[in-house]
Amino acid sequence: MNRVYLDNNATTRVDSEVLQAMLPFFTDHFGNPSSMHDLGDVASAAMKTARQQLQALIGAKFDHEIIFTSGGTESNNTAILSALGVMPGRTEIITSAVEHPAVLTLCAHLEKTSGIKVHRIPVDQHGRLDLDAYRMALTHRVAIVSIMWANNETGTIFPVAHLAEGAKKVGAIFHTDAVQAVGKLPMDLKSTAIDMLSVSGHKFHGPKGVGALYIKSGVPFHALLKGGHQERDRRAGTENTPGIVGLGKAAELALECMDEENTRVKSLRDRLEKGLLERIPKTSVNGDPLARLPNTTSVTFGGTVGEAIQLLLNRIGVACSSGSACNSGFQMQSHVLEAMNIPSTAAIGAVRFSFSRFNCEEDVDQVLQVIPGIVKKLQGSYPAPVWWAKS
Amino acid sequence: MNRVYLDNNATTRVDSEVLQAMLPFFTDHFGNPSSMHDLGDVASAAMKTARQQLQALIGAKFDHEIIFTSGGTESNNTAILSALGVMPGRTEIITSAVEHPAVLTLCAHLEKTSGIKVHRIPVDQHGRLDLDAYRMALTHRVAIVSIMWANNETGTIFPVAHLAEGAKKVGAIFHTDAVQAVGKLPMDLKSTAIDMLSVSGHKFHGPKGVGALYIKSGVPFHALLKGGHQERDRRAGTENTPGIVGLGKAAELALECMDEENTRVKSLRDRLEKGLLERIPKTSVNGDPLARLPNTTSVTFGGTVGEAIQLLLNRIGVACSSGSACNSGFQMQSHVLEAMNIPSTAAIGAVRFSFSRFNCEEDVDQVLQVIPGIVKKLQGSYPAPVWWAKS
Ligand SMILES: Cc1ncc(COP(=O)(O)O)c(C=O)c1O
Ligand SMILES: Cc1ncc(COP(=O)(O)O)c(C=O)c1O
Repeated sequence: MNRVYLDNNATTRVDSEVLQAMLPFFTDHFGNPSSMHDLGDVASAAMKTARQQLQALIGAKFDHEIIFTSGGTESNNTAILSALGVMPGRTEIITSAVEHPAVLTLCAHLEKTSGIKVHRIPVDQHGRLDLDAYRMALTHRVAIVSIMWANNETGTIFPVAHLAEGAKKVGAIFHTDAVQAVGKLPMDLKSTAIDMLSVSGHKFHGPKGVGALYIKSGVPFHALLKGGHQERDRRAGTENTPGIVGLGKAAELALECMDEENTRVKSLRDRLEKGLLERIPKTSVNGDPLARLPNTTSVTFGGTVGEAIQLLLNRIGVACSSGSACNSGFQMQSHVLEAMNIPSTAAIGAVRFSFSRFNCEEDVDQVLQVIPGIVKKLQGSYPAPVWWAKS
Repeated sequence: MNRVYLDNNATTRVDSEVLQAMLPFFTDHFGNPSSMHDLGDVASAAMKTARQQLQALIGAKFDHEIIFTSGGTESNNTAILSALGVMPGRTEIITSAVEHPAVLTLCAHLEKTSGIKVHRIPVDQHGRLDLDAYRMALTHRVAIVSIMWANNETGTIFPVAHLAEGAKKVGAIFHTDAVQAVGKLPMDLKSTAIDMLSVSGHKFHGPKGVGALYIKSGVPFHALLKGGHQERDRRAGTENTPGIVGLGKAAELALECMDEENTRVKSLRDRLEKGLLERIPKTSVNGDPLARLPNTTSVTFGGTVGEAIQLLLNRIGVACSSGSACNSGFQMQSHVLEAMNIPSTAAIGAVRFSFSRFNCEEDVDQVLQVIPGIVKKLQGSYPAPVWWAKS
């Protein structure tokens, strides 16, 4: 049986073209971009190219609006802490109830230790943001709005350009965690009021350990990591040139094939969804039926435990997720599904399948062949038997 | 003419064995270590191995005393901010006047914005710490002492085990920036009072963009990056598995060849130093003549400008540095040489040559052949002519 990888929202395989682009920067072109000799120059020129590649993907006006970081988490933390730093008179944050822990954990910490007030805008049963609650929370006390472009568990897409307009009216900085959206959705930041945007390389076939933060020109900014003068004093530390070159190449490839691959990936995802709904009773899809990432589906198999399905699928070579990867070691209930008011008995039966351009029809057919049996067995033995528990 | 790379304190070439170890984690084993499927398990097992490899190199008692970060800068920032966080009653920091900007810039920022008092312990003309001043500054008001193990510009080694004992007596956390020492000096942390230690992969033939922070078991700690539960809640963000595997392999290789290579590298360095002192008038070596990294020499060529030498050497394929790389884009005077009370007319003539295990005798001979002519020309035309200025 073929291995089938349907956990691309957790992480993706590095594209071989990306790896090829990176390789020289480990050995031949290993210089420090800050060094004043040829090896340094080669490295800094490569960083410039990468910045332009990412600029093109997200439609930024200038390449210097992008700084490279160690990933989505650092980008999110940097954006939020920066906004509080540059607007000391403002003590409130607006975010959503369904953000990634890289936003929510920081917000909870700030609430506890710094007296910051956090508005967590609720969502409806399809994961759609409560726009009235958002408008109500928007005041001149808000330093930053941080709302994700697309949710990692359900794929639900938020109207960030529209939300950013609202934030602008009250002078708040608008940040979006676009880790799951970059490379999957077309973007043209220069035509929006979005001030900051987080990127993570490994979510679109770039390497792990590298990400970026877009900071619109003119937006005041405080660096999180302090030290050398790298990235125009906005992010200290010797630059991860191979990683940055890889992120740039991944951005270029994503832009090149986005339209075509979106259509193909969406048809695979829809085929899986349709097949599961047809074949398996008590099955439903979580998330916004309309505004959803083309690659993601969160499916609830009633009367089962998602983690059991995930583990049984793993035994036969199929990788998927029963929650966001960051939580999965912890058997916690998904805060996303909880915010959507999905009863915990149903939420516990949720499995996320997330596609990438490396998936094909056979992957879908293989999964459709095996899941009905697995679910049937589990549905027949609810409450969940002991044998699926992680050892 | 061969290319000669003598800028290894800025960054090193990734060892080919390191790169080989990393490669599978970009493609075949690309899973997210937090994922509950086989691909995740392979990644998290590899992280365990890397942790043990680094544990062996630094002589830590437990592998879980190590967390992986994005580099030396993040590790330093994390250590200092953590100590202030866990000891809110203490408002002073002790550091040295010759730390890397990754410590000094943060300290200056804290001093300015958080009312933290920073003691910058001075050094003598050989770069040796003023131990009396250190003892005087040690009080129960000190949250953290952060003093580097070895200086990046001169190679001067500080008696960190001894300094840590002093910090312990007043209940302060002792952190050392060991970015230039790890892989070059033998370490046995479990037998010291050192509480935290920073590591950067790219300084010892590992990859850029990955580092580590050692946190002695039992030392209270606050995470800097907040988000998922990675690294036992001590550093959020999807782990950079290829980078971590590379760092681990680099640690293994460094430990294996340390004794032998130290001797060989030191003899190359000494050969260069001796040759320069013999051949060129008005030449002197900066730093502690006794306690010094085996690979580093900072040489002042009187009546010249180091940057001019660096640029002329670069034209004929020799890479070196005229200051720490982080500053070199800025033509600032070295704060290290300034702290050593080296007159600015002499400090401006300093060039750093830093070796690694990839250097050989021919490198030294090649440099010895060309530098005398370069220096002679420059010494004859002081004050420095315009043509060397970076365009
Ligand atoms: C002594 C010292 N500390 C910290 C750093 C920062 O490490 P990194 O550039 O990996 O963040 C460096 C090198 O740049 C260094 O030489
Ligand atoms: C929506 C979202 N934000 C942020 C992150 C964090 O990114 P990283 O793990 O690269 O730090 C992730 C993935 O883990 C994510 O899905």
